[in-house]
Amino acid sequence: MSLCRFTRLTDNVEKFRKMNLMTNPIQIHDIISSRRSPVAFSDRKIEPEKIAGLFEAARWAPSSYNEQPWRFIYAVRENLPQFTAMLDCLVEANRIWARNAYLLVLSIARMVLSRDGKPNRYAFHDVGLAVGNLIAQASSMGLMVHQMGGYSTDKARDVLAIPREFEPVAMIAIGYPGNIDELPEDLRRRELQPRVRRDLSEIVFENIWKG
Amino acid sequence: MSLCRFTRLTDNVEKFRKMNLMTNPIQIHDIISSRRSPVAFSDRKIEPEKIAGLFEAARWAPSSYNEQPWRFIYAVRENLPQFTAMLDCLVEANRIWARNAYLLVLSIARMVLSRDGKPNRYAFHDVGLAVGNLIAQASSMGLMVHQMGGYSTDKARDVLAIPREFEPVAMIAIGYPGNIDELPEDLRRRELQPRVRRDLSEIVFENIWKG
Repeated sequence: MSLCRFTRLTDNVEKFRKMNLMTNPIQIHDIISSRRSPVAFSDRKIEPEKIAGLFEAARWAPSSYNEQPWRFIYAVRENLPQFTAMLDCLVEANRIWARNAYLLVLSIARMVLSRDGKPNRYAFHDVGLAVGNLIAQASSMGLMVHQMGGYSTDKARDVLAIPREFEPVAMIAIGYPGNIDELPEDLRRRELQPRVRRDLSEIVFENIWKG
Repeated sequence: MSLCRFTRLTDNVEKFRKMNLMTNPIQIHDIISSRRSPVAFSDRKIEPEKIAGLFEAARWAPSSYNEQPWRFIYAVRENLPQFTAMLDCLVEANRIWARNAYLLVLSIARMVLSRDGKPNRYAFHDVGLAVGNLIAQASSMGLMVHQMGGYSTDKARDVLAIPREFEPVAMIAIGYPGNIDELPEDLRRRELQPRVRRDLSEIVFENIWKG
């Protein structure tokens, strides 16, 4: 990633050149730049006040009509039957590493608005905002978060008794970072891969769509 | 909001009591606790490198299959024709305050997966995660963010030339905080209202749904 892409977008090339940003990465906050979705988790217990902090951060996210469509069910590993019930909803490829996380969370969306019972266009979007807060809070406390779409929503709904107007969104594994060298070789390779993203020029346009 | 609600959930009441958290709010990071969606914006220009930082933060959000379904179109106020084109998509109730923001952004979701063209269940969710990063980055740089669902998606699609497989998500006003006393009385009252959220006991359940 380089700033070259962005300068083209902003038409502020001269300004950027002067600031010598062409050769430097764009600065973003540590909480965001240090985040990744790991498969290596430590068996260290997460302190109860940190668990509370995760959900408190999620709670203060913004939402359309302040509907707050987010709900969360969680289980800690020391509570083994409940933890295993959630773990068993995952596909095998996720289960092999997620079982090492201390905390499993299911994010859930209320699909209708409280005010009129109509579909909430922003239900999933606003759950994403809340989980974004949760992840930022986790990073600030030294915790790692890995979300998964690879699980049975039907099984989760059934096992966790989720009502009809709510929809399971993502399974989330949370824990302290683990030792990469203790991973099986295929997971170890995966963990060491660099993170990749589209260039800014592909995702940000000034004034009008440029496709 | 008090911790009482959460202690009931976690069954860690004794631990919480000892830590004397019953009378203290749950600690969360300043970036999250200081965020709000204001209607008072300053006319101060946002530095180009900060604009770059907003999108760079969004860019590094996690997403399902690393699809990165987020796209952004933005206009700065000094570029008046384009800024006005975006402003005119808003409903009047939003336009009266959003026009004071220095930066308008439309978040956009790609609704199908690159890998197979099938619907992306997490399109809106992952745009929410990216905007969550953008908001956290904004807070860390002293900027305020206010998202709006109150705008014409049809008009935005038309004016900004958004392709069919993409969907406009939210209009986002961004700027430095403004002087509340310069707001019209109704907006001033709105700005001074305390933020409210559901209690943790309504949104977080241990082990199984409790409704």
